[in-house]
Amino acid sequence: MANKWTIAIDAMGGDNAPLSVIAGLDLIYDYLVKNNIALLLFGDAKVLSPYLVRYPRLNNISTIVQADEVVQGDDKPSKIIRKGRNTSMWKAIEAVRNKQADAVVSGGNTGCLMGISKLLISMIEGIRRPAITTLLPNTTDYTAMLDLGANAECDEHNIAQFAVMGSIYSKILLGKQKPKVGILNIGSEAGKGLDYLTKAEEIFEAKKEHLPFEYFGFVEGDDIMKNKVDVIATDGFSGNVALKSIEGTAKFISTDLKKVFVKSPLTMFGYLFMRGAVKKFKNKMDPRKYNGAVFLGLNGVVVKSHGGTDAFGFSNAVLYASRLLVDDFTSKVAEEIKKLN
Amino acid sequence: MANKWTIAIDAMGGDNAPLSVIAGLDLIYDYLVKNNIALLLFGDAKVLSPYLVRYPRLNNISTIVQADEVVQGDDKPSKIIRKGRNTSMWKAIEAVRNKQADAVVSGGNTGCLMGISKLLISMIEGIRRPAITTLLPNTTDYTAMLDLGANAECDEHNIAQFAVMGSIYSKILLGKQKPKVGILNIGSEAGKGLDYLTKAEEIFEAKKEHLPFEYFGFVEGDDIMKNKVDVIATDGFSGNVALKSIEGTAKFISTDLKKVFVKSPLTMFGYLFMRGAVKKFKNKMDPRKYNGAVFLGLNGVVVKSHGGTDAFGFSNAVLYASRLLVDDFTSKVAEEIKKLN
Repeated sequence: MANKWTIAIDAMGGDNAPLSVIAGLDLIYDYLVKNNIALLLFGDAKVLSPYLVRYPRLNNISTIVQADEVVQGDDKPSKIIRKGRNTSMWKAIEAVRNKQADAVVSGGNTGCLMGISKLLISMIEGIRRPAITTLLPNTTDYTAMLDLGANAECDEHNIAQFAVMGSIYSKILLGKQKPKVGILNIGSEAGKGLDYLTKAEEIFEAKKEHLPFEYFGFVEGDDIMKNKVDVIATDGFSGNVALKSIEGTAKFISTDLKKVFVKSPLTMFGYLFMRGAVKKFKNKMDPRKYNGAVFLGLNGVVVKSHGGTDAFGFSNAVLYASRLLVDDFTSKVAEEIKKLN
Repeated sequence: MANKWTIAIDAMGGDNAPLSVIAGLDLIYDYLVKNNIALLLFGDAKVLSPYLVRYPRLNNISTIVQADEVVQGDDKPSKIIRKGRNTSMWKAIEAVRNKQADAVVSGGNTGCLMGISKLLISMIEGIRRPAITTLLPNTTDYTAMLDLGANAECDEHNIAQFAVMGSIYSKILLGKQKPKVGILNIGSEAGKGLDYLTKAEEIFEAKKEHLPFEYFGFVEGDDIMKNKVDVIATDGFSGNVALKSIEGTAKFISTDLKKVFVKSPLTMFGYLFMRGAVKKFKNKMDPRKYNGAVFLGLNGVVVKSHGGTDAFGFSNAVLYASRLLVDDFTSKVAEEIKKLN
C-alpha cells in the first residue's frame, strides 16, 4: 500500500540530534505505520546510518536523503538563504516545496526554519501572512496562541486570519468542536487598546455566521493561562513578549523552587514524603508535552521542535505534524479563509 | 518646624480601606516623622475618625479633609471626570494640582487615578507622555519596567524618555548609581523588531555622554526576571501584556503548587519539614514588598497601591512616594530630560 503522507525530518537539527530525532521517531513508530506516514531523513548518511542500526524497524518507513551540511544555532537566515542549500534543513523544506513531502519537522535554528519556509513554500490561497503558534498549558487544558513572532506588525485582517487558523489547529489537536477565540489586549472592555484590534472585532461581528469559532472578546496577559479561551489571536510582537514572559517566569519560579528543596537535610527529608506530588506537578508543567511551534499558513505543515528537547519531546513535535496532515489542516484553512474573505 | 513634604492619601481607596490605609500609615509613622512628611487624609470624617482613635499618634502628622464620595472599582474614568469631584480620589489628586500636597497615594481604581491625574496635574517640562512603572523581582534584585499601560502606542522619543525616568526611579528606589537600561524587543540583535525601537537606540547612541544610565541593548520577555538590566523601556501595550503574563504565570504555578502541598496526609507530613524553606520562598515572591505602581512624568508623585493589599502593602506604597519626594525625583527628571532633548 502506498504511503498517504510523507514527513521530511531535519535529522541534524537540535542540540541532541541525531540521537533524539531517531530515538523519537522510533517511539511513535506504530502510530506512523498505522497512519501510512513515511519519513524522509535529511542528514549525512554516514552519521545517520549507525543510529538506524540501533532502531532498525525505522528502515521500513524511512529513506535517508544526503545533506552534507548543518544549519548552526547562530546562523542568520540571510546567510543560510545565500549559501545554505546543502544543509539538512534547507533540503527538508525544499522537499515540501517540491511535493516530495507534506510536512517538515526540525529542531534547528527557528529564524532559519521560518525564513527558508517562507521563501520556498507558497502560502495557502487567501492567507496574507503566516503565523507561528504553540500550545500553552492552562488550568485544565491547553490554549493556542498566535502569532508568536513571525509578524512584528499586524492589521485587523491578519488578526482575523490568525483566529481562523488557530481555531482549526485547536480543533484538530485538542478536539475543540467550536473553539472560543479571544484577542489579546490591555483591557477587556470594547474599544480598549489599539485600533486594529477593535476593527478585528468588527470583522468577527460582520462575518458571525461564517466563522469556525465562537468569538469571546478581548483577553489580557493574565488570562492566557486561565482556561478562558481556546485560541488567542495577537500580533507577533505582543505574542512573542507574552510567550517569553511566561517562559521566563516559569523558569524563575522553578529555579527558586529547586533551591528550596535542596536547602537543608531537614527539607530534603521532607521532600522525600512529597516526591510523588512534586513529580505530578512537574509532569503537568513538562514542556516536552507541548513541544512544537507550528508555522501556520503555508502549503505544507512546518513544525519547529524545541532545540534542547529529548526523544520524547521530538516525537511529540512529529505527532503534531502527523495529526495536522491526517486531519487535513491545510485544506480546512483554505476553505474557512474563503468564507472569511 | 514646618513640614517639608505633604502626601495626599486617598483614605477610602482599596478593598480593605480605610483600615489598611490607616494601619499602614501607622506602620511607617517613625519614618514619616523623621522625614518631616505630613499627611492629608481624604475621606468621610465620620468613617475615618474612629480609626484615628485606634492609631492616635497619626493625629500628630495628619489632617482629615472631608470627601463625601468614593470612586468604585468599576467606575469609568469618563464618569468620574464628569461627576466625581466630591470623591476622595479626585480631591486628593486636586491637592497635588493646587500645591497643597507633593504626592498622592491611592489603592482605588487604576484607570480613574491615572485619568484624573493626567487631567489635573501638569507634565514635567519636556516630558511628552507620562508612564506607569513598577518593580518586578528578578533572581537577585528588582527591575523597573515602563510603560505598563498608559500609552498603547509609542514612538522613539517616548521610549527614550521612559528610559530616563525609569533610571532615576531605579537610582532612588534601588540605589543604582548608573542603572543598566534595556529596550524590550522580540530579538536581541540590532535591527530586530519594530522600527521605532531601533530609532530609540540611535537616540541613545547620539546622546551617549548625556544619559543618566548605561544603555545595554535589546532584551526579550524571558530576560525580565533575570538580573540582566535594571530598567526595561517599552510601549504601554507590550509592557502591560508582559506584566500580566508574568502575574498570570506566577498565579498559575502557585495555585498548582498549593494543590501539591495539601494533596494527602503524606505530603502534608512532608510539608511540615519544609515549611521554613517554603516560607522563605513565598517571602521573596511577596507582592506586597514591591506594591506600588508609580505614574511617572507629572509634576507630583502619583502612586497606585494594589487594591487588594493589606496595611504592610499600603505602607510600602507610601514609602515609595516618600522616597521619590525626599530624593527629589521630579527635579532630577526635569534636569535629565533637558539634556536628552
